[in-house]
Amino acid sequence: MIKEGDFILLYGGKKAQFLIKYSRKKPFFESHLGKVEFPDEFDFGDVLFTTKKKPLYVLRPTTSDLVFRVKRLTTIMYPKDMGYVILNLGIKSGDRVIEVGSGSGAMTIVLASIVGEEGMVYSFERRKEFLENAAYNVKRAGLHTRVKFILRDVEKEGFGVFDADSAVVDVPEPWSLVEHVKRAIKGGAPVFFLSPNIEQVQKTYKALQEHGFVRMKTVEILEREIRISEGKTRPLERMVSHTGYLTFAHKVNHEE
Amino acid sequence: MIKEGDFILLYGGKKAQFLIKYSRKKPFFESHLGKVEFPDEFDFGDVLFTTKKKPLYVLRPTTSDLVFRVKRLTTIMYPKDMGYVILNLGIKSGDRVIEVGSGSGAMTIVLASIVGEEGMVYSFERRKEFLENAAYNVKRAGLHTRVKFILRDVEKEGFGVFDADSAVVDVPEPWSLVEHVKRAIKGGAPVFFLSPNIEQVQKTYKALQEHGFVRMKTVEILEREIRISEGKTRPLERMVSHTGYLTFAHKVNHEE
Amino acid sequence: MIKEGDFILLYGGKKAQFLIKYSRKKPFFESHLGKVEFPDEFDFGDVLFTTKKKPLYVLRPTTSDLVFRVKRLTTIMYPKDMGYVILNLGIKSGDRVIEVGSGSGAMTIVLASIVGEEGMVYSFERRKEFLENAAYNVKRAGLHTRVKFILRDVEKEGFGVFDADSAVVDVPEPWSLVEHVKRAIKGGAPVFFLSPNIEQVQKTYKALQEHGFVRMKTVEILEREIRISEGKTRPLERMVSHTGYLTFAHKVNHEE
Amino acid sequence: MIKEGDFILLYGGKKAQFLIKYSRKKPFFESHLGKVEFPDEFDFGDVLFTTKKKPLYVLRPTTSDLVFRVKRLTTIMYPKDMGYVILNLGIKSGDRVIEVGSGSGAMTIVLASIVGEEGMVYSFERRKEFLENAAYNVKRAGLHTRVKFILRDVEKEGFGVFDADSAVVDVPEPWSLVEHVKRAIKGGAPVFFLSPNIEQVQKTYKALQEHGFVRMKTVEILEREIRISEGKTRPLERMVSHTGYLTFAHKVNHEE
Repeated sequence: MIKEGDFILLYGGKKAQFLIKYSRKKPFFESHLGKVEFPDEFDFGDVLFTTKKKPLYVLRPTTSDLVFRVKRLTTIMYPKDMGYVILNLGIKSGDRVIEVGSGSGAMTIVLASIVGEEGMVYSFERRKEFLENAAYNVKRAGLHTRVKFILRDVEKEGFGVFDADSAVVDVPEPWSLVEHVKRAIKGGAPVFFLSPNIEQVQKTYKALQEHGFVRMKTVEILEREIRISEGKTRPLERMVSHTGYLTFAHKVNHEE
Repeated sequence: MIKEGDFILLYGGKKAQFLIKYSRKKPFFESHLGKVEFPDEFDFGDVLFTTKKKPLYVLRPTTSDLVFRVKRLTTIMYPKDMGYVILNLGIKSGDRVIEVGSGSGAMTIVLASIVGEEGMVYSFERRKEFLENAAYNVKRAGLHTRVKFILRDVEKEGFGVFDADSAVVDVPEPWSLVEHVKRAIKGGAPVFFLSPNIEQVQKTYKALQEHGFVRMKTVEILEREIRISEGKTRPLERMVSHTGYLTFAHKVNHEE
Repeated sequence: MIKEGDFILLYGGKKAQFLIKYSRKKPFFESHLGKVEFPDEFDFGDVLFTTKKKPLYVLRPTTSDLVFRVKRLTTIMYPKDMGYVILNLGIKSGDRVIEVGSGSGAMTIVLASIVGEEGMVYSFERRKEFLENAAYNVKRAGLHTRVKFILRDVEKEGFGVFDADSAVVDVPEPWSLVEHVKRAIKGGAPVFFLSPNIEQVQKTYKALQEHGFVRMKTVEILEREIRISEGKTRPLERMVSHTGYLTFAHKVNHEE
Repeated sequence: MIKEGDFILLYGGKKAQFLIKYSRKKPFFESHLGKVEFPDEFDFGDVLFTTKKKPLYVLRPTTSDLVFRVKRLTTIMYPKDMGYVILNLGIKSGDRVIEVGSGSGAMTIVLASIVGEEGMVYSFERRKEFLENAAYNVKRAGLHTRVKFILRDVEKEGFGVFDADSAVVDVPEPWSLVEHVKRAIKGGAPVFFLSPNIEQVQKTYKALQEHGFVRMKTVEILEREIRISEGKTRPLERMVSHTGYLTFAHKVNHEE
């Protein structure tokens, strides 16, 4: 049965997808498809009907859904990119991971959902407004016990965290944080940088080389949706062509 | 310090990457870069030198590394696709996930690394040879306590697992398993199908529609690597253009 | 000097590009950038200023410009696809080419601009309204002496043209024309089919195989624009992902 | 009937495509498919059989075929890119076009096939060896009356050609030729630059801006082949991911 505080994805078609947090205090939902009343007892997988007789399916939201539907104050990373990062940083249950900046908390949610109760995400942000919004989003997702939010200008003060399993760096000037990242992660560990522009990647490479990092790799991930429809199967006509360059590197323990 | 049984990625350049499982019984490694002796004590992030004076960096392998370097009897899913699946099935710490078929155990390793000790992966395979190889790979990765391998022809016998959080289906005729998947996963839960050919996707859609699934979506994920090099920055000249179509859907509890 | 009837591309920035046909009878042009008066004498490459003091450059339009700015009653082929077709049909000065259907005359303009005065484009269309609009666009481009427009249902009546160097087929059911195409083009000559959906391509292949065509090939052409800007160089964020599948084949002279 | 000197594409399958120039002096052809004797009279579209009983279809080569099969001393532009250039420079029957460098003459063949007998291609190359090879390839294609090859270091001496309709620049340091291009082409006319690396494009933009060019645009063209096969339809697994950045601009007549 759906319980107080559960996230529900109400699905009424491709252009009618709504993520809500269920509460008995507000036992209804309204949209352009009409109003739907929630019965006293209902469950995931059920179909409800709106006042306009439109079906709304009660689905379990995925991590992509949670991510796309956070309250945003910033642009957020796309699931296509986040998934690639998870695999290429080797994020897993129990990991201690650094994130900077917190942004809107979208990637924080992904990291926290994977590191689990034994792991920890250290999420750094220097703008208070962003940090508070990110913390709100993470708390709403019920993942706040796995995240420490830290309001700090990392470039000046460093992370103050050591032996992290990996780091996710999504700031406009990532090269300025390479030295701090090096101190904060384990020997041989991987780090990830997201940058929309090629010049940012070029500068980050220089900083990585100066600090002895190895195994640098930069990729773009493209997602192309296909419409499957009898006699009309084809890729969608428009797509997101670029979100950012994903750069990875590993730390080496040079004596300094 | 590196301990008995640790996975190490020895990195000597883009074309010299070796994943080994460290054992004191064989304290050396040989490749085209020469032979390297492992010291009594060494750590991730260290640099070793081969007999040909080439550096080999001792790096922490990522999930991508573990996946790409399993002993293969089958084609394996690519990390670019696996990451997308993780986000779009919402795989997280503590989940109970169904996988069919086990293949070479590559995706099994990814799932097990994320669901953690509280979660469980039920991995079904009907060819004994594949199942044994997958189990070997998973055990080698130290993740066997999180995986139940089941030798079974699911089309005939069903999964015998219920209320799973999601399912990963990677078999040549996925449409034949849709009914069984429906019984095995929770109401409203997501399922994923991998198919290289468009006709497979079309048949799977028909089966999904017949069984009342909703929110079908099919995508391709493309990975494009960029060479960052002073004055010579550009995408690599060749890329993997197609691995498979990724199809997602959610279960609905229709009375039958 | 600009002469009566010349096509001019007035360029005031990426979102202010206007193709006009110059006439002394209307010696001014108005847009959101303001009004510009044409001097008695001006030339390609000149800069004019609008009443809002915005520069408008007098540029020579390319074939892409002529194509994108025809009066449209139908969707038109994209220049990225047209260019590929020119090379892969081997369209050249002096060729006799069949086109079906005329659509809005966009591809007709491209073909006519290349076959020249010694060549000829036979453009078939069964909807009078489309044919008249295509003929208007071609005449406006000054290429009408190189095109014969023919109002005909080719499926029923055939082309009535023989020994064509190649054929461009852009109709919803191209498979129904394969037999007619075979009669109309030279032995060993190439033919091109444009189809948005994969099922159309599959049916066309069957028809091509039944009629003994060989060397079938199907491609998609993707165009990705890059913004070059100091410190902000990157691909544009959105792109056209799919226009159609381009299929090519060659005729073989089987005795029938 | 096939005549002395005709180009023939012998087609025996995707991996057995041979471009030959027919001569009675050598009335046979040998390949891994066996030997085939040419009959006294045969025609395009005919099927010949080899000594191994394999069919070889006698097809008309397209411009792509001529281009891909020139004798190469350099890398050549790809047909996917060439076609886009034709449309975006507006190359047409009768044009006078500048090309630098000649390379292996592949693009020269395309340009010459389109400008026709009334047009002219001015092809500049500073390395004698390349120029001679390009001239050989163009002559072999029977297009030499439409091309003037000029051995010259354009950076030092300029083009010495004026009022060209457009220019194709494919050299390692295109920025060094921008001033010369400006002198050589008509007011408002377009110019094209091919560069594999992004830094080359960035430098070219600077030079274009300094010389008052407008309407700069840079794109990449990607070609993705689809296998159409019953039950096995899908994109090919590997593709050429990058050949080069295509940059376009138009000349403006600033007083200098």
